[in-house]
Amino acid sequence: MWKHLGEQTIRLESPPTILAASSTVGPKEGQGPLASYFDVILEDVLWGEDTWEKAETKILKETIQRVITKADLTTDQIQYIFAGDLLNQIVATSFAMREFKVPFFGLYGACSTMGESMALASIMIDGGYADYVVAATSSHFCSAEKQFRSPLQLGVQRSLTATWTVTGSGAVVLSKEGLGPYVTHITPGKVIDLGVKDSMNLGATMAPAAADTIINHLLDTNREPDYYDLIITGDLGVIGKQLVLEMAQEYHYDLSKNYTDCGVEIFDPTTQDTHAGGSGCACAAVTLTGYILKEMEKGTFEKVLFIPTGALLSPLSTQQGESVPGVAHAVAIETNLE
Amino acid sequence: MWKHLGEQTIRLESPPTILAASSTVGPKEGQGPLASYFDVILEDVLWGEDTWEKAETKILKETIQRVITKADLTTDQIQYIFAGDLLNQIVATSFAMREFKVPFFGLYGACSTMGESMALASIMIDGGYADYVVAATSSHFCSAEKQFRSPLQLGVQRSLTATWTVTGSGAVVLSKEGLGPYVTHITPGKVIDLGVKDSMNLGATMAPAAADTIINHLLDTNREPDYYDLIITGDLGVIGKQLVLEMAQEYHYDLSKNYTDCGVEIFDPTTQDTHAGGSGCACAAVTLTGYILKEMEKGTFEKVLFIPTGALLSPLSTQQGESVPGVAHAVAIETNLE
Repeated sequence: MWKHLGEQTIRLESPPTILAASSTVGPKEGQGPLASYFDVILEDVLWGEDTWEKAETKILKETIQRVITKADLTTDQIQYIFAGDLLNQIVATSFAMREFKVPFFGLYGACSTMGESMALASIMIDGGYADYVVAATSSHFCSAEKQFRSPLQLGVQRSLTATWTVTGSGAVVLSKEGLGPYVTHITPGKVIDLGVKDSMNLGATMAPAAADTIINHLLDTNREPDYYDLIITGDLGVIGKQLVLEMAQEYHYDLSKNYTDCGVEIFDPTTQDTHAGGSGCACAAVTLTGYILKEMEKGTFEKVLFIPTGALLSPLSTQQGESVPGVAHAVAIETNLE
Repeated sequence: MWKHLGEQTIRLESPPTILAASSTVGPKEGQGPLASYFDVILEDVLWGEDTWEKAETKILKETIQRVITKADLTTDQIQYIFAGDLLNQIVATSFAMREFKVPFFGLYGACSTMGESMALASIMIDGGYADYVVAATSSHFCSAEKQFRSPLQLGVQRSLTATWTVTGSGAVVLSKEGLGPYVTHITPGKVIDLGVKDSMNLGATMAPAAADTIINHLLDTNREPDYYDLIITGDLGVIGKQLVLEMAQEYHYDLSKNYTDCGVEIFDPTTQDTHAGGSGCACAAVTLTGYILKEMEKGTFEKVLFIPTGALLSPLSTQQGESVPGVAHAVAIETNLE
């Protein structure tokens, strides 16, 4: 007996509650359309630290500490932390974890990390292995730009298809007991590569994986797109979003009424010069912990399909002529249980 | 109700069977003391590929394909793959995953990855989420040296405290049904940093985490060290191994009779110039899938505590003056169930 629906989706029989959520963002995100939803908006991207990477560690650490407090818990009540980031050897995360003394599972899913972490955290709760688990992630424009593209001081021009890495962190505490919103289903993703090589158009590289996960989720659950009030991918940006609409339509799923993308929502391209939109692990994470969950509290959304998306390249793989594989992990979040 | 023992250990109520295991190693490992245990010994470290990284992808991919075949299964019977490696953005793994079309959870635990992947794979089976799960990892001397230290062509001298990254991959298929050997307990690790900064002495940086996980495992399970026929850490090397013995003794646990380290076992320091021993994700993985499991089949060991260990540094974190945090995940493997 196992809990799979169809090929790929798990229905959680004891759906965990998202007991608390917290977000921290940088100044640019704090000037965007979702500004009012974030817990903390930093005045600058160093936050008193000497380097971008140490700043990112601080942002993640503070966000996790804050979400544990918001849940009315102490750190020693947390059984596990699932987290990761974009940096080489996920150092922002590992260095933050030193402070917590909680058993830790390090993840690398690129910008899909919030989906990957919430999926595994949900399994730990649903399976009876924990009462309280933290899922979290971070990204930082400066640390990501320096590592993946060019140091800021070079002033390299960004292409119009490029997205802007969100500076920030999002974290949730999942709990066994609670009144929702509940994580009801997870659809872990497969790595999909249709041969797109343009590392300056990551939306296009990830769209196939996003479409694959969404379509399989709908097939497995026997739900139509309009079951959900909101279907939202992580950071496909305007280009990737359009590709997902087209790919889903090929399978006769019309997502046009209720589908958007965190990267499209988090910045205002007309005033913020963010080209194709937002990206980075924190893009999906802060949009969830800020905007989506707060609107669920208000009743605007009762059923959300949240699909963080990751582009699994490195600077080296691109230099070696490789295409960019993508992955997308879906998490269904519902106010009420069926 | 949850399945924790004490602070940190999970007792698996439906212990998964290690249905199949496979290992691939490079020429150096194939000249070492464990040579007869490996499934495939490569003649050279490129294996027909153009780059070290593409070779590492091939090594991981082939090892996973082989272990699925050894389990008498096909790829579409595998529900999940948990894997990771040392490379930036774990590209060796992500690119290998393109071939499998199996839902994939990317991990970063540095050289602790085999423990992390087996722990999570065991949860998926024990929790009823899957019948068959693959846990795997890889490392490659050349790709690791280039990324973490210096390109080979520079001919930089290695310190005597340094370890040699194992070229290879180890993979297991865990299954719900089977006759063992069983994964009976997992003790996921906390990130421990006692301030050791020497990135050329990683054994010392990881020893505190290894000791912490071993000690907590023994406390949680109420087992003495001699319950196990073998307690074996991942890649502490001769220096880290000695430190673990000392730290465990402070807690009145005498490990001296049955404790060793995969990094100590995999190379012959007198003939192979490997200084403090072997390291890399594959060190623990091939030692397990080659030596340990084959000796368990023969009955030499019936109860093994396997503790892969990871050093969570990056070249950048060291350049920024940081110390090196460590993590260690323990997996208890037993021929018979209690």
